[in-house]
Amino acid sequence: MPEKILDDISHRRYNPLTDSWLLVSPHRTKRPWQGQQEAAVANTLPEYDPKCYLCPGNPRAAGDTNPQYEKTFAFVNDYSAVKEQQPDYESQGKADDDLESTLLRATGVKGVCYVLTFSPTHCLTLADMSGKDILPVVEHWTRIYANHLSASSPLAELIPKLNLSLGHDDAPVPKDQYRYMQIFENKGAAMGCSNPHPHCQVWTTSTMPEEPGKELAQMTKYRAEHDGRHLLADYVKLELAKEERIVWQNDAFVVICPWWAIWPFEVIIIAKRHIRSLLDFTDAERLQFADAIQEVTRRYDNLFECNFPYSSGIHQAPLKGTQEEIDNSYFHMHFYPPLLRSASVKKFLVGYELMAEPQRDITPEQATLRLRNCAGELYRNKLS
Amino acid sequence: MPEKILDDISHRRYNPLTDSWLLVSPHRTKRPWQGQQEAAVANTLPEYDPKCYLCPGNPRAAGDTNPQYEKTFAFVNDYSAVKEQQPDYESQGKADDDLESTLLRATGVKGVCYVLTFSPTHCLTLADMSGKDILPVVEHWTRIYANHLSASSPLAELIPKLNLSLGHDDAPVPKDQYRYMQIFENKGAAMGCSNPHPHCQVWTTSTMPEEPGKELAQMTKYRAEHDGRHLLADYVKLELAKEERIVWQNDAFVVICPWWAIWPFEVIIIAKRHIRSLLDFTDAERLQFADAIQEVTRRYDNLFECNFPYSSGIHQAPLKGTQEEIDNSYFHMHFYPPLLRSASVKKFLVGYELMAEPQRDITPEQATLRLRNCAGELYRNKLS
Ligand SMILES: O=P(O)(O)O[C@H]1O[C@H](CO)[C@@H](O)[C@H](O)[C@H]1O
Ligand SMILES: O=P(O)(O)O[C@H]1O[C@H](CO)[C@@H](O)[C@H](O)[C@H]1O
Repeated sequence: MPEKILDDISHRRYNPLTDSWLLVSPHRTKRPWQGQQEAAVANTLPEYDPKCYLCPGNPRAAGDTNPQYEKTFAFVNDYSAVKEQQPDYESQGKADDDLESTLLRATGVKGVCYVLTFSPTHCLTLADMSGKDILPVVEHWTRIYANHLSASSPLAELIPKLNLSLGHDDAPVPKDQYRYMQIFENKGAAMGCSNPHPHCQVWTTSTMPEEPGKELAQMTKYRAEHDGRHLLADYVKLELAKEERIVWQNDAFVVICPWWAIWPFEVIIIAKRHIRSLLDFTDAERLQFADAIQEVTRRYDNLFECNFPYSSGIHQAPLKGTQEEIDNSYFHMHFYPPLLRSASVKKFLVGYELMAEPQRDITPEQATLRLRNCAGELYRNKLS
Repeated sequence: MPEKILDDISHRRYNPLTDSWLLVSPHRTKRPWQGQQEAAVANTLPEYDPKCYLCPGNPRAAGDTNPQYEKTFAFVNDYSAVKEQQPDYESQGKADDDLESTLLRATGVKGVCYVLTFSPTHCLTLADMSGKDILPVVEHWTRIYANHLSASSPLAELIPKLNLSLGHDDAPVPKDQYRYMQIFENKGAAMGCSNPHPHCQVWTTSTMPEEPGKELAQMTKYRAEHDGRHLLADYVKLELAKEERIVWQNDAFVVICPWWAIWPFEVIIIAKRHIRSLLDFTDAERLQFADAIQEVTRRYDNLFECNFPYSSGIHQAPLKGTQEEIDNSYFHMHFYPPLLRSASVKKFLVGYELMAEPQRDITPEQATLRLRNCAGELYRNKLS
């Protein structure tokens, strides 16, 4: 039984993964909306667009031509946020109480950014693809992760057993200099996506980024304080018992509107067993993970009968780390979708959220019920 | 001299106020933009709109009628995120190792949310108003803050000396139950503003929100480690000496593109002397603060010749707190504006930013130069 009172009163909830709180105001969706409306997204993209720099055979900004690829295709972003080659830099620590070294700290970051298409078809989103169609994407993520893994990682011994053939479009293997790989997708113009051909990005950096760094610290602390148990393993166990926030599950993964969700229909896909990174997956689990992604994205599109925008991202073990860091990592994938009331009205995380604390208008339990009811065939296939 | 190399290489910068890092990729604005364009905002609002629920004399959603106010006007939001009256709630701590009390934590939050208009005129933004016109806004903020201050606060003794007459539209004084007051503005549809009549919001809560809480912890730590000096006092001193990130200053305040800015043209207004809250201001300082707000908002509008959207917010001493907490607080105001390249292309803080780490495309030093060059008359007054 959910704590019914939380459907009616304003309250804060705690996020143990990031050690932070958010404000929940369940009654607040009653207010009228006179603000910005998102443009309705026409579902009329062609299968191939001669001007798209992601379609097979087309030229790209930097002059390269895409191969006639058949499944997925990855290339180094022509406008990468980080680069493999640049001068080293570290702001100088001077005297102990030197203002400049305390208040103006900086450090150089090297890395490589890839763009990875989900399929050659310009109009095919993850929601349109079957789990089987999505499998090559999961396999490509696994190969890119393996290609960048530090030789010193305890995970390295798993690579020979992978049995995934390397595609012609696999990225070249760079030096052993990277600490973390962030795989993420921005879907839809509302989430800053600048090309509708379905794709994700993979940014690999020499430094540990803030969010996975915070989560790893919290997971490490939890394990130390709870007899070696994993925070997310305990959380999955608790949610499976309570059944209040579970949207969908199969043998290997569970889709939850987390207790601490910030975005209206935020979900998290969590592995049921302790999986540290993509390299720990069995062949069966790769397909089960693809199925979970399919379930989430199809339900999202069904919710407001539109191409539902979101940002998603995978958190897993760092490419380089101590045995303890690798073992404390626990594979999961976040989905942050902005829509709140309809295909055209989103939740703005702005003034109060940026200056004070994230605030949400419906409870995660209410969002769960809505998403549970969005099962079944993709709405656009039913229409035709 | 700025560290010139940082104009060319990707690097991380440290934010000592929040103890976090962000990624800076100075070369990245070169990429072409095919994504979402913001709607151009027509500057054709009337002085009075009979359908606006903020204009004088008009009816509001809940049935009240606005008075014929002449300067500012505040009222309790008809759709508040927090309320004064609701049942108490605290999730139960059970056994020490009880999963539920560790992983599903919640606590009730009471509070009151005000809307505060800047003037009776429907079309007059802060950028259109003079410092003198903005002064009543600063005075109203001061009165609302004073009205909600805990009687036990060391700042309470300043109230009788205030000498600000209470307007007819002042909010009723609630009980001594509030911990923090967040004053903030969402300006423009791009920042979730749902009514163009210029206004801000004031959310007062029984709990300390995340962001000011983090900053207070960092400022407290800094003072303890640096002979009682204030983090922001030291930062102002350093920036005044280096002159690389200063946009504007007067005797009492300085406008800086902070070293750790996330948003493309983010600025911070910092008090030059140690001011803990609005109650510490002298009469002269209130006008000087109004002037600083005027300078920021006019330069913003001049930058791309548009109604420049942003969220802004004031951080100051909590309404209720220990003597140490009050004395460690240091008054400042943040401005987070999303536009990056033009009036219609904003920076999206999405996939990588949400999943891994905030990322910016131009350096704060470059943004400073641009904003320095936006002085002078408001562009729309020049045109007419
Ligand atoms: O209260 P408003 O202006 O209608 O709402 C706006 O500001 C709030 C506080 O930042 C946000 O929670 C809302 O998402 C936003 O649309
Ligand atoms: O690289 P893209 O897709 O052009 O850019 C998009 O994703 C990036 C990573 O989240 C963001 O930094 C950009 O603001 C956004 O527009």
